Amino acid sequence: MMPRKKLLTLESMNQWVRAANVPILGPLTTRAAEIQKEIQEGIHKPFTKITPCFYGDLQAMGHKPKTFLRQVAALCTYPELLESDRFPEDAKTRARGILQNLDNGSVGSYNESYITQTLPQKISSFLQRRDHGVPSNPRNIIVCSGTSQAIVSVLSLVVNDEEELNTGILLSVPYYPLYMDTIALSGAVKIPYYLDEEHGWAINVSQIREGLPAARKYCNPKVLCVINPGNPTGHVLTRENISELIHLAAEEDLLIIADEVYQENVFAPGAVFHSFKKVLYEMGPKYRERVQIISVNSISKGISGECGVRAGYIEFVNIDPAVFEVLYILKSFHIPSAIGTLMLEVVLDPPQPGDPSYDTFMMENQTLLNNLAQKAQITEKILNQSPGIHCYPIQGALYAFPRIQIPDRAIRLAQEQGQEPDEFFCHLLLEDTGIVLCTGSSFGQAAGTYHVRITLLHPIDELKSILQRIAQFHERFMSEYS
Amino acid sequence: MMPRKKLLTLESMNQWVRAANVPILGPLTTRAAEIQKEIQEGIHKPFTKITPCFYGDLQAMGHKPKTFLRQVAALCTYPELLESDRFPEDAKTRARGILQNLDNGSVGSYNESYITQTLPQKISSFLQRRDHGVPSNPRNIIVCSGTSQAIVSVLSLVVNDEEELNTGILLSVPYYPLYMDTIALSGAVKIPYYLDEEHGWAINVSQIREGLPAARKYCNPKVLCVINPGNPTGHVLTRENISELIHLAAEEDLLIIADEVYQENVFAPGAVFHSFKKVLYEMGPKYRERVQIISVNSISKGISGECGVRAGYIEFVNIDPAVFEVLYILKSFHIPSAIGTLMLEVVLDPPQPGDPSYDTFMMENQTLLNNLAQKAQITEKILNQSPGIHCYPIQGALYAFPRIQIPDRAIRLAQEQGQEPDEFFCHLLLEDTGIVLCTGSSFGQAAGTYHVRITLLHPIDELKSILQRIAQFHERFMSEYS
Repeated sequence: MMPRKKLLTLESMNQWVRAANVPILGPLTTRAAEIQKEIQEGIHKPFTKITPCFYGDLQAMGHKPKTFLRQVAALCTYPELLESDRFPEDAKTRARGILQNLDNGSVGSYNESYITQTLPQKISSFLQRRDHGVPSNPRNIIVCSGTSQAIVSVLSLVVNDEEELNTGILLSVPYYPLYMDTIALSGAVKIPYYLDEEHGWAINVSQIREGLPAARKYCNPKVLCVINPGNPTGHVLTRENISELIHLAAEEDLLIIADEVYQENVFAPGAVFHSFKKVLYEMGPKYRERVQIISVNSISKGISGECGVRAGYIEFVNIDPAVFEVLYILKSFHIPSAIGTLMLEVVLDPPQPGDPSYDTFMMENQTLLNNLAQKAQITEKILNQSPGIHCYPIQGALYAFPRIQIPDRAIRLAQEQGQEPDEFFCHLLLEDTGIVLCTGSSFGQAAGTYHVRITLLHPIDELKSILQRIAQFHERFMSEYS
Repeated sequence: MMPRKKLLTLESMNQWVRAANVPILGPLTTRAAEIQKEIQEGIHKPFTKITPCFYGDLQAMGHKPKTFLRQVAALCTYPELLESDRFPEDAKTRARGILQNLDNGSVGSYNESYITQTLPQKISSFLQRRDHGVPSNPRNIIVCSGTSQAIVSVLSLVVNDEEELNTGILLSVPYYPLYMDTIALSGAVKIPYYLDEEHGWAINVSQIREGLPAARKYCNPKVLCVINPGNPTGHVLTRENISELIHLAAEEDLLIIADEVYQENVFAPGAVFHSFKKVLYEMGPKYRERVQIISVNSISKGISGECGVRAGYIEFVNIDPAVFEVLYILKSFHIPSAIGTLMLEVVLDPPQPGDPSYDTFMMENQTLLNNLAQKAQITEKILNQSPGIHCYPIQGALYAFPRIQIPDRAIRLAQEQGQEPDEFFCHLLLEDTGIVLCTGSSFGQAAGTYHVRITLLHPIDELKSILQRIAQFHERFMSEYS
């Protein structure tokens, strides 16, 4: 036998998949892990621990799960508990109702009919309540394992690489990085549109419209992606802004992908979440039956923050079900978990007034939202006291995305090291304080502006201290590099 | 505003994705659902209910979940239960240990370090025990949401469509249909190899070898897919057959994808599961460090049958981790559920002798395996009494795949109706008995042979009656169409 080559190597592997491997947090989190190890080995640092402020994981950051939700999930997982007196009656009733809809009453069955029929009906009822009666048809809803997977699936429907021009996808800057990766993997082309920081990160629709003729020279613009409430910006779109976007979509034949996963995380006074679908409906028959919208939502954020259980859904508006029903075939690659999806059912249909669990459930929700509102205010206040940092009002989602000044000398030094200026700042911040932030450049930002994304998920006192340390460090950074 | 077209329609959508939409069970299950409805509406049928025998869903078909597994899952989902006296001490201890490894002790966190570090170590220990000491490195293991998704991801690494010749993938006939869809979606080309029915569905390696030169004219054969124990065949490969396959892979530069999801479902006297990795290791250094294997497994089948919770893993053998670590980036599209993955941990490390839950756990496993063994024997016996049906010994997995005779007149009638002959048979069987089987043609079969797949999951008495009704119907079918 001759010595032969291995088949699958870095050189021989699918280069397209390899190219998608752009770790955005990579160097910062890798360095943070090294520092953590150094601390454990007794190496002296100007801080005692690494403080991660980079990911939107409510429960990992100390937010408690919703009691009722976990009770129902535990009862369905181990139905012998229905005999236990540790559970309120409404949790048991709910669990019994769900178990009746599962194949042979088990979360261990594939439960295809629960996932493809029972649950879409319940989601549809929720959507009608949410949108004050705007009709929703269960046939237009697909349950999925979370919105990341949903976005990949949805793009696979829309992106058509057999056409002469590449499919163009309008994506905000800043964007949520998953969209960049997904668009790249799907073979489509990104058409950036810049959010208007000076107007609190609203969308400047005429600017998008003016940019389209140029985009049409190199691609076929088909999709308008909007994240509302905004990640990383924390902006909540006004009804007017949404209505303008729908006008644009109607005029320019764009399909809207509305990423509405933070719809429950709206806490600033006066800010209200409007779904794209509701606004469309209210714009009358001329639009109502024609503009195509795909909206995604999950239980990873919202009031439950159950990102570990993996469940979400997609609503298709004005799209022939034959188009997206192919996802039922493709879905065999991504069957959602029965425990996750039953938790989705409970989140969308929480205890009602008079139910034994109602008061606790409402209290837990209110605590989360009040807490986020309070932290948003504190964050704006502390950051805006710092001369080189500016943060627009945070109306929703789970993050602050302040602009930070970076002096010219730091920009030059960063360039010499092959880093983005905000990456340079974040690395120094990490070495000095142990705080890990996301760089603005990983979300995209207007040329010459620099940002960081800070999660609002630490307990209030800890968050205060984190923000003060960031502000103080930034001041030192400014004087050192000016 | 001009009236304009909708962007996303059946005509404009990705035709590649649309083409993947080949529902294999489609017409049969659709008709079964119609019949179910007709029965409810009072329309008379020669049977009282639809009897589905087409899918490998243990729990949906009445098999009980493992008590210890569900106890630990419930305790981790709702940790307040750690105070309850309804749980044995070992379940509580196990739950406490798992919760310590979860981010902030919550199944609602993303739990990236649990999924990418803690769990691979535990899987690695299991694999070393399973393979009698053959070393396993946690760095070569990736946790996933189940093997369907795993296979899609793995093929995305291997299939390289920038090369002149398409990637060729050797796939058994019969195959598990997911592979056909996945290969089609990945842009690779299938190279069929026929399992040797006359030798109980073993693999004829020299036949594969002889077919390769012809395949090399239209593709670049890179991957050898093997399902062991076999689905739909129920065959368990001998150590010798596996060793021959590894020789072939070494000589022909093939990467082996070993689908080993039924590794625990081996029940025929004398049949033993050998992992490809263990056999490779025992073949000595010349092979041990060179032949590349990717093995997949999950908790959907095996002794737990927890297909609804979505958890599995992939082990990579002799592959540079830099190749598959890109899946950690891609995985952000398919984050596994924390509840599912902790159940995977428990399945791979069950209670030990002396633990309070040991006896129950062992008893539950033995019940399942004895039950399958008994049903396999009954199935062979009943089917082989029928002159037009032949079933080779079922050694493992969850199915029988008997060959059925179809008379010429039935074949002609089927062709006239645009059906496969076995599809024609299955439709008539459904109308006459309410029994829903999978057609052999949906798995692929040698030209001129016809099969059906029957699941062994109904309770024994029910299975007996199902098999008798199939055999009786087949006899009538033979005389009617001969």
